[in-house]
Amino acid sequence: MIGRRHLILAGASLAVLPACSQEKTLAVGVAEARLKELGIELPPASKPVANYVGYRRAGDILYIAGQGPDFKNPAFRGRLGETMSIEQGYAAARSAALNTLAQVRAGAGSLDNVVQCLKLEGFVNSADDFTDQPKVLNGASDLFTEVFGEAGRPARYAVGVNTLPFNVSVEISSIWQIKT
Amino acid sequence: MIGRRHLILAGASLAVLPACSQEKTLAVGVAEARLKELGIELPPASKPVANYVGYRRAGDILYIAGQGPDFKNPAFRGRLGETMSIEQGYAAARSAALNTLAQVRAGAGSLDNVVQCLKLEGFVNSADDFTDQPKVLNGASDLFTEVFGEAGRPARYAVGVNTLPFNVSVEISSIWQIKT
Amino acid sequence: MIGRRHLILAGASLAVLPACSQEKTLAVGVAEARLKELGIELPPASKPVANYVGYRRAGDILYIAGQGPDFKNPAFRGRLGETMSIEQGYAAARSAALNTLAQVRAGAGSLDNVVQCLKLEGFVNSADDFTDQPKVLNGASDLFTEVFGEAGRPARYAVGVNTLPFNVSVEISSIWQIKT
Repeated sequence: MIGRRHLILAGASLAVLPACSQEKTLAVGVAEARLKELGIELPPASKPVANYVGYRRAGDILYIAGQGPDFKNPAFRGRLGETMSIEQGYAAARSAALNTLAQVRAGAGSLDNVVQCLKLEGFVNSADDFTDQPKVLNGASDLFTEVFGEAGRPARYAVGVNTLPFNVSVEISSIWQIKT
Repeated sequence: MIGRRHLILAGASLAVLPACSQEKTLAVGVAEARLKELGIELPPASKPVANYVGYRRAGDILYIAGQGPDFKNPAFRGRLGETMSIEQGYAAARSAALNTLAQVRAGAGSLDNVVQCLKLEGFVNSADDFTDQPKVLNGASDLFTEVFGEAGRPARYAVGVNTLPFNVSVEISSIWQIKT
Repeated sequence: MIGRRHLILAGASLAVLPACSQEKTLAVGVAEARLKELGIELPPASKPVANYVGYRRAGDILYIAGQGPDFKNPAFRGRLGETMSIEQGYAAARSAALNTLAQVRAGAGSLDNVVQCLKLEGFVNSADDFTDQPKVLNGASDLFTEVFGEAGRPARYAVGVNTLPFNVSVEISSIWQIKT
C-alpha cells in the first residue's frame, strides 16, 4: 500500500494533500499508484504536429518534446495579461504537464521508472507587461510534485514570449532521469 | 554502397526522397555519404559572434550553440507574419540546420559518429499573431531526417519570440548523442 | 599558487586580465581561488520564487534553474532597447551569472568541482527592434571565463523575448559538467 506519508509534497498549491514537506524520502517507483489515488487519467501521448518525435532517450536521460495544453480546449488558447487570467494559465500549464506525463510514460515504459524531473522549460504566451510567468508555470510543477513528490520538483525556467504555436497559452519542454 | 532503402524518411516535406517510412532501421554511420548523395556541401563551422563556443561535449552528449541562418543572406532576416512567408522561414531554418551540422561535424569528428538528434530548440522571429512556428522549424528537422533518417528526428520545441540577434528569422539550438 | 598564466581568457571584455588566450590549459579545480583573486563574493544561492528547485543533478551533469539578476536592484529591471542600454543589460547578465555560480557551488559542493560549462541559455527582455542580445549575454559568459578560463566558455544561445518574470532584463539557465 502506498501511504501518503511516503511522499514529499513541497511547494505551493498542494492543498489537496496533507502537509508533510519536512520528510525527505523520495517517492520514486510509486507514481502510477499515486496517479490513480489522485484520480488522474492521462491522455494518450499526443502525436507530434510536425516533423519531430514526442521523446528521445540517451542512457538514463529522457528528453520530452514541447507540449502544449489540450488543443481541443479553446479555454487554453490566448495570451496572459490580455485574454487569459493567471488561473486560466495555471490550468493550461497543468494540461500541458498531463500531456508531458503521457510522453514520459511512453518513453520510460511506466511513470514508476522516473527517478527525477531534471529540468522544466516553460514558455508563456504573454502581453508585453505580463510578468507572472512563474505563477502560471506552477500549474506544471505542482502536478509533477503531486505525482512524484520531491523528485518531481525540477530545476526550471519560465519566460514570456509574444506568441506560441496554435495560440496556446503555455508550452513546456522537459528533461527527466529514468531507470534503465 | 549506401542504399536509400536503409534510411527512414518519415515526416513532412520529404518529397525529394522515395517513401520508405515503414522501415525502422536507423541510418547511423552513413550520414556523410548521404550528404554527398543529396548534393549538400556544409558551410564551415561558423565562428561564434560573441563569448561562447560552437559546441561542448560531455561523454557521448554534444551540445550545439544557437545557430542562425547564413548571416550574409538578407533573405533570411525578418519577422514571420510581417516580412517573411512560411516558405522563406522554412528556408532560413534549413540554413540554420546546415550551420548546425557543420558544428556537429566539428564536435563529433564526422557526421558518421552521430547516434541521434536528441533535442531541437527552435525560436522563430514572429509577429504577435503568427502561430505557424512548427511549419517553419520543419526546415531544420526535415534536413536532419534527410541526412540521418529516423535518428535525425528530434524531440523538439518551437516557440515564437519578438526579436532575434541580427534580426535573423530563426535560431536553433540542439543536443546530440554521438559515438565516443 | 594560482598563476594567471594558467587560465585561458578568450573572448571579449576581458580587459581586466592579462591576455594569454593562446594557452590551452584548462583552469579546472582552481575556480574558488580565482574567485577570491578577482575579489568576487558570491551571493547566497537564491530561494526559488515558485515551485521548483535551484538545481538538479544526474551523474556528472548539473542543471541550473533560470536565474535573474539581483531582484533588489531596480537597475536590473527593464527592457533592452527601451529603458535599458547594452551596458546596463551586460551588468544585469553578470549579476544573473553570479546567482548562477551560487547555485553551481551549492549543487557541486565547490566551484572547484566544475569541469566545464556545457550550455548557457539566455533570454533578453527586448524591444521589438533590439537585436544585440549576444552583447548583453556576454555579461554572463565573460564572468564564467574569468572564473573558469576556457572551461567556462559555454555553447550558448541568446534570444529576445517581449517580457520576463518581475520585469528583469535578463534570465539565464545553464548546464554544467562536474566532478562526481
